Amino acid sequence: MKVLVVNAGSSSLKYQLFDTASNTVLAKGNCERIGIDGSRIVHKTTGKSEYVNEMALKDHSEAMKLVVNTLLDKELGCISTVDEIEAIGHRVVHGGAYFSESVLVTDEVMQTLGKCVSYAPLHTPAHIMGIKGCLSVMPKTPQVLVFDTAFHQTMPEYAYLYGVSYDMYEKYQIRRYGAHGTSHRYVSGEMIKLMGGKAEGTKIVTCHIGNGSSISAVKDGKCIDTSMGFTPLDGIMMGTRCGAIDPAIVPYIMDKENMTPAEAEAYMNKKCGLLGISGISSDSRDIEQAMNEGNERAKLTFDMLGYQIKRFIGSYSAAMGGLDAIVFTAGIGEHMPYLRKLVLSGLEYLGVELDDSRNDFGHSGSPVKISSDNSKVTVYMIPTNEELVIAKDTEAIVSAL
Amino acid sequence: MKVLVVNAGSSSLKYQLFDTASNTVLAKGNCERIGIDGSRIVHKTTGKSEYVNEMALKDHSEAMKLVVNTLLDKELGCISTVDEIEAIGHRVVHGGAYFSESVLVTDEVMQTLGKCVSYAPLHTPAHIMGIKGCLSVMPKTPQVLVFDTAFHQTMPEYAYLYGVSYDMYEKYQIRRYGAHGTSHRYVSGEMIKLMGGKAEGTKIVTCHIGNGSSISAVKDGKCIDTSMGFTPLDGIMMGTRCGAIDPAIVPYIMDKENMTPAEAEAYMNKKCGLLGISGISSDSRDIEQAMNEGNERAKLTFDMLGYQIKRFIGSYSAAMGGLDAIVFTAGIGEHMPYLRKLVLSGLEYLGVELDDSRNDFGHSGSPVKISSDNSKVTVYMIPTNEELVIAKDTEAIVSAL
Repeated sequence: MKVLVVNAGSSSLKYQLFDTASNTVLAKGNCERIGIDGSRIVHKTTGKSEYVNEMALKDHSEAMKLVVNTLLDKELGCISTVDEIEAIGHRVVHGGAYFSESVLVTDEVMQTLGKCVSYAPLHTPAHIMGIKGCLSVMPKTPQVLVFDTAFHQTMPEYAYLYGVSYDMYEKYQIRRYGAHGTSHRYVSGEMIKLMGGKAEGTKIVTCHIGNGSSISAVKDGKCIDTSMGFTPLDGIMMGTRCGAIDPAIVPYIMDKENMTPAEAEAYMNKKCGLLGISGISSDSRDIEQAMNEGNERAKLTFDMLGYQIKRFIGSYSAAMGGLDAIVFTAGIGEHMPYLRKLVLSGLEYLGVELDDSRNDFGHSGSPVKISSDNSKVTVYMIPTNEELVIAKDTEAIVSAL
Repeated sequence: MKVLVVNAGSSSLKYQLFDTASNTVLAKGNCERIGIDGSRIVHKTTGKSEYVNEMALKDHSEAMKLVVNTLLDKELGCISTVDEIEAIGHRVVHGGAYFSESVLVTDEVMQTLGKCVSYAPLHTPAHIMGIKGCLSVMPKTPQVLVFDTAFHQTMPEYAYLYGVSYDMYEKYQIRRYGAHGTSHRYVSGEMIKLMGGKAEGTKIVTCHIGNGSSISAVKDGKCIDTSMGFTPLDGIMMGTRCGAIDPAIVPYIMDKENMTPAEAEAYMNKKCGLLGISGISSDSRDIEQAMNEGNERAKLTFDMLGYQIKRFIGSYSAAMGGLDAIVFTAGIGEHMPYLRKLVLSGLEYLGVELDDSRNDFGHSGSPVKISSDNSKVTVYMIPTNEELVIAKDTEAIVSAL
């Protein structure tokens, strides 16, 4: 089945045309700066050269029309009729506590999605525009929503509730929701396959370490805890996000620096983390280079990050009552042997034994085992593939119609 | 040596007269409501009946004078001359990064203590008043300061720094300081004695669980991490404190509830935790009773607390590279078998084996081993004794003069 995977942001519309029979990407691209000056499409059909074209795109409907026309274009595209696109799958950032799995778009689903705006006020309206854009161009094509939070909906209440007063949960639904669920689901699923295919009895910690980072405890194939929380600020430090801190620091800084709540939130999301500690960059590659040139704050940054990930692995081992496997994925998790080694050193008590030569692999896009053959805990780097999950979920739901 | 242990709060002055030769308390009491209406002393000499007397106490000097006179009183007291008090030891809540061990009071020390006011703006001025009160009544008696933060000063930089921008550390010294250090030091020291007396090679998690709670990782007898942070709000949920939460919740609640920074801080410190989740009480005994009567929120409260402690034990095992012993202490830690069992269940992968019959002991004031004899990890309840540590430190410093 040919599935168009759509990731709609407030002024962008990323897409991939997926062939689920061969698990291959036929074409992909991005409409940028929708509704603002200088909007353009960047498109690439597999095997052809990249195409960039600037043109006015006043909304997501116009962008979607352009995407379809580009896919149909004899020179640039890869399909002959719009009907070849049998289904559309949307990445949706936040499904609140409403969605614990992927769903077909219906009027009722759209109403419920409207209730999720307050959880992700920047993303949800963009998703809705993306869905409506598809509806205007391909009114008969079934659409499916795949939620970043759905995989985490299996967390028990004692894990997803915070120690704030219960009325805050009742009034504002303040609880842990998590993020990157599609990625955690994908890599834990791949890890289970590598372990023999039986989810029951498996205890896996998945480390999605990128510009945004989250760590999950996946027991019997189900998420029982995750580090991101009410928002994607919780958990470990990230590119520009501080992660979990003493919450009393927030009013303290607001008072000292005369910040509004919105400014405090922006500060914690944009000026902290790897950028704020290193003082160099939010990009781990820049910091690693500085570290290799002797910069001590750069080294400190990774010492902190590695220590925080290590502590989560220990913490989630306790949550699951043991540990069978660790997975590293996403930008940093897939590409930084130094950090992986830092994280794993000292975890010998859990039965983790790293194989240094395996850890220093050249990334080929395939999973790589980095633990030794004697290691009681299996450790893998597994490249994440959220688009594949979205395409497969979409296919499954649409095939069953 | 007879040491007067003093714990001065903003309107109170608690004291114990300690005999370090026999490790016994000769007398203890509390001056309450100093500087406000209805001030009074509650005093008890060991073996005599309690004495309560209301009288105006305008400041800590007057209170200290009353304490000394009460100790000297033929009927109520236990000493014949003031010179019998050979030294005074003060509990000090916060020593910032200045004090990593107990110190003799000198002019220089008092100057440095002044710099610690900003870390504990309610407590430090009270401590200073207490020290000055002692100076006015017993000008020649040496005084020693014992800091709640000192034991945690051995944490490495990557553990004590938060992921906020580094300039916040430089400008406002925002970092993890920890609390309850005197308790963690005492119970980990006692645990090491029980393990044979050699600190090197030991990996202990100490759980100080009371109205305020903190958990420490003590490796080779030294603290390498602790759950309380910049303030005593960080870590696990407590009587009325929320513990660590997604920091984005703070501006979110402030915005929704129209709170100032000070109100947000007060909310998180006073309305959350066991009280806020259970909706019953901040006292674990009340909540346990409600749970036993079938209250589901009461059960949820302990499920959350137990899970959070369990996760810290796992996390600190990773930080230390293993685990030899767990200690429970303080109000809840010493007195609640149900919670201890909840915490320890599922930690079999670490080698923890609880002995249920040992766990259900009657508290006698002595350490009790609650793990089975086959347990790889030794688990103890050890009653904390911060006053003893203060008295012993004071004796050691004063004896060396």
